[in-house]
Amino acid sequence: MIIVMRKDATEESIQKVCKVVEDAGLGVHISRGTDVIIVGVIGDRRKLADKPIELMEGVEKIVPIMEPYKLASRTFHPEPTIVKIGDTEIGGEEFVIMAGPCAVENKEQLFETAEIVKKCGAKVLRGGAFKPRTSPYSFQGLGEEGLKILAEARERTGLAVVTEVVSPEDVSKVAQYADILQIGARNMQNFELLKAAGRSGKPVLLKRGMASTIEEWLNAAEYVMNEGNFQVILCERGIRTFEQKTRNTLDLSAVAVIKHLSHLPVIVDPSHSTGNWRWVAPMSRAALAAGADGLIIEVHPDPERALSDGPQSLKPEKFAELCEDLRKIAPIVGRRL
Amino acid sequence: MIIVMRKDATEESIQKVCKVVEDAGLGVHISRGTDVIIVGVIGDRRKLADKPIELMEGVEKIVPIMEPYKLASRTFHPEPTIVKIGDTEIGGEEFVIMAGPCAVENKEQLFETAEIVKKCGAKVLRGGAFKPRTSPYSFQGLGEEGLKILAEARERTGLAVVTEVVSPEDVSKVAQYADILQIGARNMQNFELLKAAGRSGKPVLLKRGMASTIEEWLNAAEYVMNEGNFQVILCERGIRTFEQKTRNTLDLSAVAVIKHLSHLPVIVDPSHSTGNWRWVAPMSRAALAAGADGLIIEVHPDPERALSDGPQSLKPEKFAELCEDLRKIAPIVGRRL
Amino acid sequence: MIIVMRKDATEESIQKVCKVVEDAGLGVHISRGTDVIIVGVIGDRRKLADKPIELMEGVEKIVPIMEPYKLASRTFHPEPTIVKIGDTEIGGEEFVIMAGPCAVENKEQLFETAEIVKKCGAKVLRGGAFKPRTSPYSFQGLGEEGLKILAEARERTGLAVVTEVVSPEDVSKVAQYADILQIGARNMQNFELLKAAGRSGKPVLLKRGMASTIEEWLNAAEYVMNEGNFQVILCERGIRTFEQKTRNTLDLSAVAVIKHLSHLPVIVDPSHSTGNWRWVAPMSRAALAAGADGLIIEVHPDPERALSDGPQSLKPEKFAELCEDLRKIAPIVGRRL
Amino acid sequence: MIIVMRKDATEESIQKVCKVVEDAGLGVHISRGTDVIIVGVIGDRRKLADKPIELMEGVEKIVPIMEPYKLASRTFHPEPTIVKIGDTEIGGEEFVIMAGPCAVENKEQLFETAEIVKKCGAKVLRGGAFKPRTSPYSFQGLGEEGLKILAEARERTGLAVVTEVVSPEDVSKVAQYADILQIGARNMQNFELLKAAGRSGKPVLLKRGMASTIEEWLNAAEYVMNEGNFQVILCERGIRTFEQKTRNTLDLSAVAVIKHLSHLPVIVDPSHSTGNWRWVAPMSRAALAAGADGLIIEVHPDPERALSDGPQSLKPEKFAELCEDLRKIAPIVGRRL
Repeated sequence: MIIVMRKDATEESIQKVCKVVEDAGLGVHISRGTDVIIVGVIGDRRKLADKPIELMEGVEKIVPIMEPYKLASRTFHPEPTIVKIGDTEIGGEEFVIMAGPCAVENKEQLFETAEIVKKCGAKVLRGGAFKPRTSPYSFQGLGEEGLKILAEARERTGLAVVTEVVSPEDVSKVAQYADILQIGARNMQNFELLKAAGRSGKPVLLKRGMASTIEEWLNAAEYVMNEGNFQVILCERGIRTFEQKTRNTLDLSAVAVIKHLSHLPVIVDPSHSTGNWRWVAPMSRAALAAGADGLIIEVHPDPERALSDGPQSLKPEKFAELCEDLRKIAPIVGRRL
Repeated sequence: MIIVMRKDATEESIQKVCKVVEDAGLGVHISRGTDVIIVGVIGDRRKLADKPIELMEGVEKIVPIMEPYKLASRTFHPEPTIVKIGDTEIGGEEFVIMAGPCAVENKEQLFETAEIVKKCGAKVLRGGAFKPRTSPYSFQGLGEEGLKILAEARERTGLAVVTEVVSPEDVSKVAQYADILQIGARNMQNFELLKAAGRSGKPVLLKRGMASTIEEWLNAAEYVMNEGNFQVILCERGIRTFEQKTRNTLDLSAVAVIKHLSHLPVIVDPSHSTGNWRWVAPMSRAALAAGADGLIIEVHPDPERALSDGPQSLKPEKFAELCEDLRKIAPIVGRRL
Repeated sequence: MIIVMRKDATEESIQKVCKVVEDAGLGVHISRGTDVIIVGVIGDRRKLADKPIELMEGVEKIVPIMEPYKLASRTFHPEPTIVKIGDTEIGGEEFVIMAGPCAVENKEQLFETAEIVKKCGAKVLRGGAFKPRTSPYSFQGLGEEGLKILAEARERTGLAVVTEVVSPEDVSKVAQYADILQIGARNMQNFELLKAAGRSGKPVLLKRGMASTIEEWLNAAEYVMNEGNFQVILCERGIRTFEQKTRNTLDLSAVAVIKHLSHLPVIVDPSHSTGNWRWVAPMSRAALAAGADGLIIEVHPDPERALSDGPQSLKPEKFAELCEDLRKIAPIVGRRL
Repeated sequence: MIIVMRKDATEESIQKVCKVVEDAGLGVHISRGTDVIIVGVIGDRRKLADKPIELMEGVEKIVPIMEPYKLASRTFHPEPTIVKIGDTEIGGEEFVIMAGPCAVENKEQLFETAEIVKKCGAKVLRGGAFKPRTSPYSFQGLGEEGLKILAEARERTGLAVVTEVVSPEDVSKVAQYADILQIGARNMQNFELLKAAGRSGKPVLLKRGMASTIEEWLNAAEYVMNEGNFQVILCERGIRTFEQKTRNTLDLSAVAVIKHLSHLPVIVDPSHSTGNWRWVAPMSRAALAAGADGLIIEVHPDPERALSDGPQSLKPEKFAELCEDLRKIAPIVGRRL
């Protein structure tokens, strides 16, 4: 951390700043430039988290140098984290496909979808039982009944199950049925939920918030990991921008950035980000080519009759074609499917 | 709602679309243009919420005409809503100032601040007991202890109390101590929390999410109101943009837009939006001039020693000066302070 | 175009609106809903471009249905446009690589780079002679001297040349030396420049503005095409968002959207969008996988000594590796390199 | 400027970096932290503008400390700049109103508007003769004919004239007729135009680009000032965000930030930013309250018949009311109108 002092800062004000830093158990290093004076802070800046140094006399601004997260950082953990769900490894050589309907609607729909996606090579079944919806007048999910159907689908197919949890008090219930707890984009900074998911011990799929920077996203992962749970899978699902032709703007370069900054696996959701089935296949291929560890895709046997987000769901035959393409691209980028 | 069909849509596909609409109990009206065919839907489009018409053959796109929210809409409730907290009316002629520290730190700090802001004309005391923080390593608030200190400050000063609630399971506890429940920006689409706050019967201060459109914000209010609780105060607190000199970009035009679209009162938070005490006074004056119903401002007796967000807190003397300015501007825009 | 009238609009105001539409030579179609009255406009809405119907009594809002551009639209020109530069076809089966340094610095640097990129399979040499720079204190390019070096490199290698033009008065000069005129992101809505480039008759590479919607981008292409020049290549180069880890956010879904809305070829610039050589290879592979028609990449024989944008330039060996990967992926997505 | 080196950087790589810095005539100061090594650069970082130090071995990243602009910076020019147009001073105590139609349509319309705005207290008449429009099919302005009408209106009323120039080759022509040259948002980084406007010697009204940071905006001003022309007026006119209810998001906090960072005057355009006459009056009052030096407002005697941007133009009576409000607010914030 660098404290930039104004050129006209008095010697006294510089000494006061140094004292605050040293009192927190950190070292200081003063450097006098032509236009500014710089106080370099040596040590862990978190010790100064609650000292508003910006307000001290003579201080121009604070410039952070190191990232604020530690557990999620590749600097402190160079080897990639591999999240294991049964025999499936997320973050390793395998490119893992999670697929299924947006919402669990009934047994027939889910079982049919599960068979389809399994046949195409998916390893994880997705399906929402608790659905956060923008309007209170939209379908809100089947709740625990949906969880039971998911668990039954797992029994029948051997697929692992990922499903969203929207409230800290539901975490233990969802953890009973699911293999991976999904934290949705709207809840990325619902810190109580992050902590509860961390304590559950279950792998957590953490979607990026629509307006979240990569740094905030890794800080959110830090909340889960700080509870002792290192099984975190990040999921890029589009950020909010001015462009209106797609629902959100899928930030694929975030995948490459995350791979550089963190050891955690990162997958991509091409369905929610684009909001339109037409762009799902090209964005899925692009995600693999960009270095993602997997995908989470909406597939519905009959999108026209879906109760939620039909327009972004792939039909079974389109999904099968896409998986074929992915299977061919994978080895070129050092993956297998 | 308008369904735009492609120029080459078959008569059969048009009829199918019409049937889906009519089966939902709505009327249709077909209009044939030179480049498109348009199926106008007559009636409440919420009846079609779970029909993915976009996917039907021949359909080019769906264009919504009416807003999806009803209870929050001025169209259906032309008179402004006034939220009453004791003798204070929010949304009426009075311009209401809520002020206090970012976080409750201890009795001394809170009581001192409460006296200061009361003397300057504030009617509501703010102060966080549960603090949602980007990093798990930052100060997280005093919890219930903080709530008790807030309630004690109310006893001493007669100020009403607004404080944040971050989890559905905490709603009843916070409601015991607070006069207004604050839902923070990060939780604007934490729908379980919105519903719980709605059921509490307490007035709710609903901050705009950093990446939330005005329409989503009003939909979030709709969640609270749909529980039968119409005492909702909206709070503009800045949106996330590419500009980095301020923490967020305060969207003051949202105040004017909300006044047009909704009957709910709307206040402004100049502290969190700008992130810097320097911009708080000009943005507060601007908010009043733009038609806001009040402000929520961070004031700290000693910002250099604040445990949270010191850099954006006003010192008592700056706050007093600001209130003087506001008192003079208010009557020019039809308000009193 | 749809004109939405308020529920309480008088019959007289509806008739006035209809008259304005009909006087412009367009048809009207009235549809009365439960909450609104809708006046559908039949015919080309451009005839109403200068009538502010929004202001007429009783009008709630205007909802456009068709895109405002025609020449760039796939609706009116379903077959893909192929831009031919010598034997190279952009927009057809070939995946075209344009590569070279950010700025032309001297003969040695450019000739060396040209040989390298040619050997790897590039068909077009890029290099800036006129450099638009954020600060007046940065290197501004060699000007016409740079153009001459580019032309000489073409003589030596047979590569076509693309270079930026920044002012309408320079168009004829640049057109003398270049095979493709590049319009940079900052000039996407420099309409005088677009028209001058259109009149030049040369193929135009039109970069997307940092804050431009896809619709505005196609409208900018329309300016070029409206001068009778249909040889337009679109180039996605990242949009401005709140994310700060990459210089801009590469919007790869825009490639898929453009392919749906327009017949024009679209290529991707992974260098300027990310601003960091580390992300160039993954984003290049992703662009191909997403359906782009080509790439424009910065390559420099010695990035540490580059006078402009060195940090985003690939070294020759990294570029060669990337081209190998692209060559393998291309046939899977129906392309050849 | 700070060069952050990786913890594992070799002594040799640190020395190499220092050498590059010293060879550029700058000083270095090394500081060794627990996780990083920091090389502080002492002196003007512009001397390193074309050295991609980010690429050198062992370098983690570069952190700029000082702003890149100098002439526009308050640090180097603490006193506010006052731009004088005849008797009118922009940037001083006076709050200056510029008003008029979006486009000059004909003599009658302009003369009528000029009389109205003068009567209400405006000092400058605005009106576009060259109109940059998103679509080539929209009204493009009267060109030089429009300039002549503007000059005639000045003769009749004594108002100064501000009008947009869109191409470097038009600068001398526009400068013949206008008192202030306007550079529009789309051209904020049209550097050839900025330089030509700088050389004209006329005061320049520089609108902020829709996706421009405050820093880029001040750098654009630096282009004009670097030609020896210090008469620059900045104009905030909204930035592009995800919000769609207003055309752009007016960033009023930018006014306060500019006042802190720069000595240049800054005015606000409430018409283009909001795109709707309804929000013009509240945003105008807010701009004054926030500390702006003036406004540029669209007024049209008959907005329903305007050829350009009618929906955002105020009718004369609304404009008169607004000026009354402004006149009352001004003294409270230390201004006069």
